[in-house]
Amino acid sequence: FKLRGALNKLLTLDTAQRERGVVAFSSGNHAQAVAIAARELGMKATIAMPTDAPRAKLEATRSYGAEVVLYDRMKEDREALARRLADETGGVICPPFDHEWIIAGQGTSALELLEEVPDLDALVVCVGGGGLLSGCCIAAKGLRPEIRIFGAEPEQANDTYLSFKAGRRVEIPPPDTIADGLRPTKPGAVTFPIVQKYAEDVLLATEDEIVQAVTFVQSRMKMVVEPSGAVPAAVALAHKLPRDVGRAGFLVSGGNV
Amino acid sequence: FKLRGALNKLLTLDTAQRERGVVAFSSGNHAQAVAIAARELGMKATIAMPTDAPRAKLEATRSYGAEVVLYDRMKEDREALARRLADETGGVICPPFDHEWIIAGQGTSALELLEEVPDLDALVVCVGGGGLLSGCCIAAKGLRPEIRIFGAEPEQANDTYLSFKAGRRVEIPPPDTIADGLRPTKPGAVTFPIVQKYAEDVLLATEDEIVQAVTFVQSRMKMVVEPSGAVPAAVALAHKLPRDVGRAGFLVSGGNV
Repeated sequence: FKLRGALNKLLTLDTAQRERGVVAFSSGNHAQAVAIAARELGMKATIAMPTDAPRAKLEATRSYGAEVVLYDRMKEDREALARRLADETGGVICPPFDHEWIIAGQGTSALELLEEVPDLDALVVCVGGGGLLSGCCIAAKGLRPEIRIFGAEPEQANDTYLSFKAGRRVEIPPPDTIADGLRPTKPGAVTFPIVQKYAEDVLLATEDEIVQAVTFVQSRMKMVVEPSGAVPAAVALAHKLPRDVGRAGFLVSGGNV
Repeated sequence: FKLRGALNKLLTLDTAQRERGVVAFSSGNHAQAVAIAARELGMKATIAMPTDAPRAKLEATRSYGAEVVLYDRMKEDREALARRLADETGGVICPPFDHEWIIAGQGTSALELLEEVPDLDALVVCVGGGGLLSGCCIAAKGLRPEIRIFGAEPEQANDTYLSFKAGRRVEIPPPDTIADGLRPTKPGAVTFPIVQKYAEDVLLATEDEIVQAVTFVQSRMKMVVEPSGAVPAAVALAHKLPRDVGRAGFLVSGGNV
């Protein structure tokens, strides 16, 4: 679904824009998606990735033909870096979450899930910048207005939780969580109002709970999942959903470990 | 499907037999299946497992309530040990592969696959004792007589390959392969004639090819698979299927790693 988001965005570009290439910033899954989408469309991709991104994600992104520019997540502002790279290369920025095309592409995951299992009472989705969650909100509420939607976020990277409670976008310092895909420091300007409108709550998982969920999904469900993608399973396994929730669906997303 | 095989067998027992419990021998997947099936039916399970069985399999089998008796795979005959344990406990032996109920249960995997993807030209199935392969032969040929069936076996544990070529059951010394689930030393008396009748060929994978297939399935398909279950993928990735095979299905079985 990350790939669908990136393709959605790049397909809106005209020929001249495509020739100048694309610039993106991402800890890894969006980076890979942009790299593949750019390759498919014959575009050059320049992607800013943090120095502490998982090696699997760095290698995969390079293997899809993108040029990777490393930055220090604790010191540098990745959006400013992306703007500079865009100025230098003339490329178009493909944002990781805060954009309608990205949101629409990511929302197809909830679409697929509900097409397969229509009678869900609730849906639990991980939240970093909020692209996946807001896309899933729109898709799921559109198909099934009575569905209850919960965001799942690391306790160590609780910007959306704090924002949700405060009723406005709150920024946190660069977070230290094993869920590297959920490290944005504040919710998106486009995504947050959607989350505010449709989500019932944002639930938090501790680092221990996330690790346990990765192990559970791997050893019992035989699926490879990265920590970020296991956060919905983590809040469920830790019994953090309201007790009156019946049948719930959980997105398991990202397998770069 | 291992569980279905074990349940199939245990459900044929009368109350008096169930009270005496069940005895099994297995490197792990059948062990877990028997342990779960016995627990469901309120039976005691005693299971002989090799000292070099993967720790995940030993722990899982014990966690399902079975008593595990360890034996040295290089020195002891596991069938003789199982007979002794059966004599001591009065329990019924639930064989790992060479039994019609086990074969029927394991064949349900091909049934499921063909129900989901009916137009397969070929089916590739791993072979240890031949329970899974012979069950799949019966199910797949019953549903789709023109389907071509291939066994996939480690080069280091090629008893079925040798038997298939010789036209009779050949025994090999205890094999040394990473695919611990495929270490039986000869094909079953019940399974081999079925394999002979329905399989087109038995294809061999080297240890390297098996390891590469495990990595491929894990990193690209995001599924946890143990070496034994990756052998069909290994022969495919190593281009060992006949070139005129069109759409092939591969069983990916067992995820104890």
